[in-house]
Amino acid sequence: MSSRPTHTTSHSTTVHSKTLGLIGYGAFGRFIAPYLTRHFNVCAYDPQGVSNTSSLEIRSATLEHAATCDIVVLAPPVQALASVIDAIVPHLRPGTLVADVASVKVRPIALMQERLPTSVDIVGLHPLFGPQSGRDGIRGLPIVVCPVRPADTAAVIDFLANRLELTVSVQSAEEHDRAMAHVQALTHFVAAALAKMSLPETPIVTPSYAHLRKFVDMVRFDSPLLYEAIQCENPYAGEVRASFVQHVQALAKALDVRQTSDEFAPVPTSGPQPA
Amino acid sequence: MSSRPTHTTSHSTTVHSKTLGLIGYGAFGRFIAPYLTRHFNVCAYDPQGVSNTSSLEIRSATLEHAATCDIVVLAPPVQALASVIDAIVPHLRPGTLVADVASVKVRPIALMQERLPTSVDIVGLHPLFGPQSGRDGIRGLPIVVCPVRPADTAAVIDFLANRLELTVSVQSAEEHDRAMAHVQALTHFVAAALAKMSLPETPIVTPSYAHLRKFVDMVRFDSPLLYEAIQCENPYAGEVRASFVQHVQALAKALDVRQTSDEFAPVPTSGPQPA
Repeated sequence: MSSRPTHTTSHSTTVHSKTLGLIGYGAFGRFIAPYLTRHFNVCAYDPQGVSNTSSLEIRSATLEHAATCDIVVLAPPVQALASVIDAIVPHLRPGTLVADVASVKVRPIALMQERLPTSVDIVGLHPLFGPQSGRDGIRGLPIVVCPVRPADTAAVIDFLANRLELTVSVQSAEEHDRAMAHVQALTHFVAAALAKMSLPETPIVTPSYAHLRKFVDMVRFDSPLLYEAIQCENPYAGEVRASFVQHVQALAKALDVRQTSDEFAPVPTSGPQPA
Repeated sequence: MSSRPTHTTSHSTTVHSKTLGLIGYGAFGRFIAPYLTRHFNVCAYDPQGVSNTSSLEIRSATLEHAATCDIVVLAPPVQALASVIDAIVPHLRPGTLVADVASVKVRPIALMQERLPTSVDIVGLHPLFGPQSGRDGIRGLPIVVCPVRPADTAAVIDFLANRLELTVSVQSAEEHDRAMAHVQALTHFVAAALAKMSLPETPIVTPSYAHLRKFVDMVRFDSPLLYEAIQCENPYAGEVRASFVQHVQALAKALDVRQTSDEFAPVPTSGPQPA
């Protein structure tokens, strides 16, 4: 996955030897495209069209054309991945490297393994950033690599770590999704519930309330599709969520019981810890 | 509430003109005592005894003696406040200033107004700090003042702002408790539920997950009594908590429905936003 510029006349006409087809040109596709064009001859396909490419060395392509590139990056919503895979299969060339960039890894990788021909290489990627967190550049931001059917995993890692300067972590799909059930699914679920509360601005803000508000602000602009992918496409997310719901219900019940039996509660007399 | 040291021979024998009785010598009482002894002639009462005073200018006193001071600070667990008030009433002198330091204000202030003789002044205080947040000193930390039956609220504020160097916010008890239903009750409730999940350390940590963990760590060492006071003694906390529980349940249900109907869900085909 190394890039070799073969001929450079000016910034706008750099020619790269390897072709990369970006399938899915949504928020992430548009965000990552400028980084890819520095290293590859990039074309993109999206069912809704590929726009805003005038200043980029990126060409709008048909699905068929994008699928014939040396590297094919699948960046549709994870919910559409199966149909995208089925659509590209007839056009893939032997030796192509296919990579997905979904926020979950177990199911997308299983899909790719099942449906892509054995003649293509496969790697699963999860860039843990997007237009928001990467607005000042992607240097140092984390990406997870799940090797699947690699011709050369080392080259992929080398490109991500040394060309894009990302922080690379190699994990199995299961390791990734288990961790993300807490890191992403639980975090975004709690934030989604808090976002519905419209947390008031108050004259006095404790450090923990400041953290709570900041935490909600960090995820409140996620798209509904991403939220759903993180929650529903991660096989371990449901049980983590269910555990949280149970704890919330049990704690609420315990407090409600305490509140209604106030009059009869024994009163301790030792000192408190105001906070 | 200004302090006038009348005679100073050495640090350990400073004599202050005003007496202050601290009733309740728990974690907060012990924490705040050294700050008070710089300005008042302090004695303390606690049903479990007043210990660790060897290095402080603070004397252990009976409840009766503590109640006859110029200023009486009530620092028991809020759950015990009513019985403490009833116990001190026979001993209070006219003109005494009685202040509580509970984390909620509506009920404690109502109790003091109902049960304390009209001959004493009353102010409600909520120091939003404790041994943890104040371990490097209390300068600049927030305190809420609820004027109730003040001889001179300005003097109280002056002492807190200029002698203790706290950040003073004057609020009504209702304003305070409404704000704290979110700032404290909701925050500590969510943290309590998350604390039960034992959030794993993971190789990859997003900024929002880092916030989540930090936020849980900030409140996980609160005492059970403080947690209960914040939740059950604030008249507005129950509805805020109930609203959060409802949102959590509704969001979980919506996701579970989506998950089980996966096969039939229409798949959108536009680009995603990996995070």
